[in-house]
Amino acid sequence: MNYRMVFQTIGKILKVLGLLLILPLIVSLIYQDGDWYSFLITIGISLGCGFLLGLLKPKKHNFYAKEGFAVTGLSWIVISLIGCLPFIISGKIPSFIDALFETISGFTTTGASILSDVERLGYSMLFWRSFTHWIGGMGVLVFVLAFVPSEGQNIHLLKAESPGPKVGKLVSKIKVTARILYIIYAAMTLLEAVLLIIGGMPVFDAFCNSFATAGTGGFAVTNAGIGGYNVYSQVVIGIFMILFGVNFNIYYLLLLRKFKQAFTSEELRWYLVIIFLSIGMITANICFVERIDNFMSGLVVFKDAFFQVGSIITTTGFATVDFASWPIFSQGILFILMFIGACAGSTGGGIKISRIAILFKSIKAYLNRLIHPRSVSHITFEGQKVEDEVVNQVGRYVCVIFIIFMLSVLLISLDGKYDLLSNITAVAACLNNIGPGLAKVGPMCNYGDYSIFSKIILSFTMLVGRLEVFPVILLFNPKLWKN
Amino acid sequence: MNYRMVFQTIGKILKVLGLLLILPLIVSLIYQDGDWYSFLITIGISLGCGFLLGLLKPKKHNFYAKEGFAVTGLSWIVISLIGCLPFIISGKIPSFIDALFETISGFTTTGASILSDVERLGYSMLFWRSFTHWIGGMGVLVFVLAFVPSEGQNIHLLKAESPGPKVGKLVSKIKVTARILYIIYAAMTLLEAVLLIIGGMPVFDAFCNSFATAGTGGFAVTNAGIGGYNVYSQVVIGIFMILFGVNFNIYYLLLLRKFKQAFTSEELRWYLVIIFLSIGMITANICFVERIDNFMSGLVVFKDAFFQVGSIITTTGFATVDFASWPIFSQGILFILMFIGACAGSTGGGIKISRIAILFKSIKAYLNRLIHPRSVSHITFEGQKVEDEVVNQVGRYVCVIFIIFMLSVLLISLDGKYDLLSNITAVAACLNNIGPGLAKVGPMCNYGDYSIFSKIILSFTMLVGRLEVFPVILLFNPKLWKN
Repeated sequence: MNYRMVFQTIGKILKVLGLLLILPLIVSLIYQDGDWYSFLITIGISLGCGFLLGLLKPKKHNFYAKEGFAVTGLSWIVISLIGCLPFIISGKIPSFIDALFETISGFTTTGASILSDVERLGYSMLFWRSFTHWIGGMGVLVFVLAFVPSEGQNIHLLKAESPGPKVGKLVSKIKVTARILYIIYAAMTLLEAVLLIIGGMPVFDAFCNSFATAGTGGFAVTNAGIGGYNVYSQVVIGIFMILFGVNFNIYYLLLLRKFKQAFTSEELRWYLVIIFLSIGMITANICFVERIDNFMSGLVVFKDAFFQVGSIITTTGFATVDFASWPIFSQGILFILMFIGACAGSTGGGIKISRIAILFKSIKAYLNRLIHPRSVSHITFEGQKVEDEVVNQVGRYVCVIFIIFMLSVLLISLDGKYDLLSNITAVAACLNNIGPGLAKVGPMCNYGDYSIFSKIILSFTMLVGRLEVFPVILLFNPKLWKN
Repeated sequence: MNYRMVFQTIGKILKVLGLLLILPLIVSLIYQDGDWYSFLITIGISLGCGFLLGLLKPKKHNFYAKEGFAVTGLSWIVISLIGCLPFIISGKIPSFIDALFETISGFTTTGASILSDVERLGYSMLFWRSFTHWIGGMGVLVFVLAFVPSEGQNIHLLKAESPGPKVGKLVSKIKVTARILYIIYAAMTLLEAVLLIIGGMPVFDAFCNSFATAGTGGFAVTNAGIGGYNVYSQVVIGIFMILFGVNFNIYYLLLLRKFKQAFTSEELRWYLVIIFLSIGMITANICFVERIDNFMSGLVVFKDAFFQVGSIITTTGFATVDFASWPIFSQGILFILMFIGACAGSTGGGIKISRIAILFKSIKAYLNRLIHPRSVSHITFEGQKVEDEVVNQVGRYVCVIFIIFMLSVLLISLDGKYDLLSNITAVAACLNNIGPGLAKVGPMCNYGDYSIFSKIILSFTMLVGRLEVFPVILLFNPKLWKN
């Protein structure tokens, strides 16, 4: 392990974090909410630590998979520890564990909250809370790769932080890939904010909600949530949620005017088919159970089904209705969508569409092989042969996710305060970076009543979900730390 | 597909079933419960169909994996269709779907019941219901292999019906292997019955409960269940449940006096460690939550934890207490044990200990490979190298189980009558062949209120679980039926 290299990289990240914290400081000064000093102190701490770590000059510049995992796992913990300071210093969230939970929930784009009254936070804190989604959505390491000068090209950092079974580079230079990703990301966020402002949403809300949509986070800035805005705003947010759940490679292909290649993406097809099917089934289920036979009421049901399916499959977690009170079948669909998640290479969480597609294809191929043991069959995805090693990785990944899921449910069940269904969906919602679950952690509830121990476990599952397991659990492997 | 060979084999199975049905007929005549004619008619139908199918002489004697899957999948459906006739003819379970559910639950050793008052069935029906567990536990095809003369040695039948990632033969001849298995099975069942009778249990109950223990089934013959017998009986049943969850290879090794080889089995060690840990955690959890500080009360808690852990991990499903009202943490442990299941090569269901062990070892090896990408590491299990193909099969199997689990939960949620937790645990309990779940399908409840559609889905999951997925789902693959 090249410790100096790891610390130096974390130092860079802290300097970037310090600079990003200037934005909520400006918001505080504009809205005069009196919390400017919390941000100023935090900026000082972040830049100071970053400067000190930067003094460690590495003797060698070797940077392998080991260092990639260590930097990724550690830096997400470090930025969460520093990112929660404004909440504590301002006294808006006095408990350290609560503030840390909220910040990890922000950076990991989960959107699970311990707050019952978010409006109490004030402008600059709400801005920072939503902005953590935006930073975490595309990834803080990708940001550093894109905009901070450094020696060498660290594919290991991009690999460790970016979601999906295979991490592709858009262009041969990592730095350029990272920049292209961030430029597309920023442009789409801005477009959403503008469209929301045109529809009459206050400028502050429009930007915060756009940050939360872009990162597929889900923190709201009002107690009423997205259900409190007009239908136009709900539809705009619904469409943008689904757009941010698409693999960003596709937007890059569109920029290059490679339309055919973009629209024949297999992952995109699976994604849209799952979305349409889910919306259809939920709409039919609700209309049937609630005996809705009038067109306008049906349209409202359809709108909410569309919004909720988009919100859950992209792992955003916004809500326009209390889906925890929907019919059981519709809740079941949402529960499955929680695990499926968005496309690889998007800002969404979950297992990812491409993994699900490869898994189903490999099962189908296996069934054929059982009948004709001597037949040789290859799976293809996106027009390319999928190597056996990738198929095995997918199977292993899904198994690991379910093991962590089950163990985490068990651990938070020690609380004894929440029922088993709440615990199951709480872990599903945190592990897949969604936010709200069902039952007592539904969209109208919050995570505030969990014990400190359970909040730590849930925070851990959020990190595990966002970083796709390995960078986090490898931190506990002593072999990682050996020279 | 060699149709004639498939039908001829199913014919043999029906003849065996007809002969096995003579036992409940005798019970009916002894206890004079007036249901003898239901069995007589069913025997006639079973032998008649068996005789007719036997007339189809196969032109070729080729019997490959295809035929193995087809015979296994079809024969389990056919014996369930005929095995449910006594319940219908006698009018004790007039609904066809209910009778079929109860019979599939019996043969698959699930033990899920639609009956709220089992005592109403009468002696011979109760005997038949428990005896289906005994037949299904070791497998009806294994029985045919063992005791019916046939050409060729059908490893494909043994493979398709026996649980576990690798199916080993005890000796080189399949027929001898099958006989050894059945002889060990029968001897242990008899021993349990004798021990129960010595403890004061009525002879009828002792045999029926031994059948249910041996097959890891879980049907009780009284409404009070196992909780209604004395502590001695509960402990005997508890110990035998755990014994029947052990790989039968180990008993064969003991017979051969290869004690060292038997007791160093890795799977056995994992099995016992999981059992001890679970009992310890549940006992501690209940004593803590219910503030039990006196030794005798603690001992009772320990006894129930021991019984329930043994019952769930072996997928038997007997209950001495209402574990659905245990603290959430203890319920969570049981829920995880439902999926872990018993040892491969036992009569128990679930994913199986050896698969779980191989899965954990492969994840550990993968974590090391992530840190040292160039290192080559092999996994060993039971002292042998585990081939990559076996590891991949295990991963795929676990994923398939979770996919079927989720889809089945969704389908039975269409009912809308039961809550989500009941549906989740109902499918977990049926798919893993346990019987009772939690919430509204807990040990004090039954499956009677589910709709016909849900009962069919649950019956399907029981077959999927007992036959380890593929023989059942391949029946729906048109390629299986091609010549």
